[in-house]
Amino acid sequence: MQTPAFMPVGTQGVVKATRHRDLEELGTEIVLGNTYHLLLRPGDEVIARRGGLHRFIGWNHPILTDSGGFQVFSLAGRRVITEEAAEFRSHLDGSLHVLSPERATDVQARLGSDIAMVLDECIALPATRDQAAAAMRRSVRWAARCRRRLLELRASPPGDVLVTNSGQAQFGIVQGGLHQDLRDESAAATIDIGFEGYAIGGLSVGEPIAQMYAVAGETAKRLPAASPRYLMGVGTPEDLVECVARGIDMFDCVMPTRNARNGQLFTSRGRLNIKNARYAEDDGPLDPECGCYTCRHHSRAYLRHLYVAGEMTGGALNTLHNLSFYLDTMRRIRDAIAFRTFDKFRQEFLRSASRLSLDS
Amino acid sequence: MQTPAFMPVGTQGVVKATRHRDLEELGTEIVLGNTYHLLLRPGDEVIARRGGLHRFIGWNHPILTDSGGFQVFSLAGRRVITEEAAEFRSHLDGSLHVLSPERATDVQARLGSDIAMVLDECIALPATRDQAAAAMRRSVRWAARCRRRLLELRASPPGDVLVTNSGQAQFGIVQGGLHQDLRDESAAATIDIGFEGYAIGGLSVGEPIAQMYAVAGETAKRLPAASPRYLMGVGTPEDLVECVARGIDMFDCVMPTRNARNGQLFTSRGRLNIKNARYAEDDGPLDPECGCYTCRHHSRAYLRHLYVAGEMTGGALNTLHNLSFYLDTMRRIRDAIAFRTFDKFRQEFLRSASRLSLDS
Repeated sequence: MQTPAFMPVGTQGVVKATRHRDLEELGTEIVLGNTYHLLLRPGDEVIARRGGLHRFIGWNHPILTDSGGFQVFSLAGRRVITEEAAEFRSHLDGSLHVLSPERATDVQARLGSDIAMVLDECIALPATRDQAAAAMRRSVRWAARCRRRLLELRASPPGDVLVTNSGQAQFGIVQGGLHQDLRDESAAATIDIGFEGYAIGGLSVGEPIAQMYAVAGETAKRLPAASPRYLMGVGTPEDLVECVARGIDMFDCVMPTRNARNGQLFTSRGRLNIKNARYAEDDGPLDPECGCYTCRHHSRAYLRHLYVAGEMTGGALNTLHNLSFYLDTMRRIRDAIAFRTFDKFRQEFLRSASRLSLDS
Repeated sequence: MQTPAFMPVGTQGVVKATRHRDLEELGTEIVLGNTYHLLLRPGDEVIARRGGLHRFIGWNHPILTDSGGFQVFSLAGRRVITEEAAEFRSHLDGSLHVLSPERATDVQARLGSDIAMVLDECIALPATRDQAAAAMRRSVRWAARCRRRLLELRASPPGDVLVTNSGQAQFGIVQGGLHQDLRDESAAATIDIGFEGYAIGGLSVGEPIAQMYAVAGETAKRLPAASPRYLMGVGTPEDLVECVARGIDMFDCVMPTRNARNGQLFTSRGRLNIKNARYAEDDGPLDPECGCYTCRHHSRAYLRHLYVAGEMTGGALNTLHNLSFYLDTMRRIRDAIAFRTFDKFRQEFLRSASRLSLDS
């Protein structure tokens, strides 16, 4: 897998509105799966009996799974967090589940992803410095438990755990909110445990963008240059360029896929909302500079019609385009780095109109 | 376009849950568009300004449009039918519209389909013989008006009508319910007007299947062998085989696409409903004899998961399979006819398990 990389999000074993073939044609090399969702439905044991997530969903390329923690912590009023574990009720049927560092590791071992993430504590914002410090330190302790469990699984898979991918890597996660000294402490402790890669969590949650860039950049500096550095849940196309400039190698975000289904599209000329009446008779493609299937075959007028008529094909075609824009941006970043023209590329990308709205 | 042919239904300018490329890969040579829906949204004039339906939707193969009549007659309580025209209120916004034979012809001329249908009167069932006779005779008068209008358009397109396809063919429709003498009268009168092809309407609306086959077969005998004979809104895979045996050349039906979105799948081993719990751990393909993308890449277990999780990709993959089954059936029918083995094929197809349920 080439880096810097963007990972489309396949929450429930599919990147919404796509088929795997679409992703392959777009040059997707890795997708993200959500442990929380897969654990509840169809269940990690069902998936393990199918031979793991790759075989179950028919995707023969890398998969990264999150730990499930982020979704569990988002279940306000349906969860209790202790030092031992997070206890929560399913949003589907109210059933009670426990997600400990060990269980998060076991579940991901059953899923058999290529990269597993440690369970970390994500805090609700706004948070005090003390809250951020406490959650960060608990995350470090949980990371150590996740690592210990993975090493146990690697050494000798216990009978009650089915390991479907013996080559699974595990990434630690640096927390600490917007406090750089806490981020530094977290980075040092996480590196001390030792992982195949390192993620930066808890950013892009409402803070000013400049602060996000600053913390991501400073934290990336503390992480081993030889290991992948993954900024979780980020972001806009500009965020990708700016954070690559600050040392980030991997990203994931629902923005291209979710926005596409809502008719919000990224183009080289600016962003647009396809439901806008001005596109009703616009015979041009979404983006004249794009070579994706949608732009090669269909007009804005047709895509607007599909959106307004509620045709799911509209969501699928929009998703193809937005993912193409994201993956093409990553390809351009990689090319620019290879040709040592990244600084120039970055300046031009940020000067380009891609951030503007075409609707106003 | 090869016959016998099955036309997938693209109600609103798209065959639901598919992309045109899917249809091309499945060997689809013609799709059906619904004039009623397109007239209301985005509107026939918008489509005409885009250069017609083919250019608007980006489909470079034949399209047949219905007249809009069937949908209008289904708008119980929202329509008034007179000798002059059908007046109806849109199901979308309640706006008032008039669909006369001339308007149905004009709208289809603007859409620029390759085959336009005449406006006919579809009756609610159960109907008396007198009602069936009256509707059939009005349909004949309307057919004459549709033809006259088309010939006017061909001779000299009036300024207020934009003809986007100068080579448009027009098919008449034989009505008459289940009364063979009325069907015969309708066929004779419709042939007398003269069309490029002839359809049989008003069947497969709840009558016993044997009666449907009988009326379709007897009526097909009355139609010119040199012109295409189109049985509207039919049917199951068995219906296709049985009605080809009775002289039918063209079919359309929402069954493969609608059933697919509801998880109901056609296979060579029988029909199945993918939401059935028995498929939760079934690693086999939907149909071991099918070569479609879905069957080549995905298991029943995965398709069930996508259905249960509400992922639209499930509907898309199911649709691909059902259309593949239908189009493959038509291909096998054509091959059997070419090799003069159709009778044998028909017997084997009807003896096969494809009608049975795999769920019970």
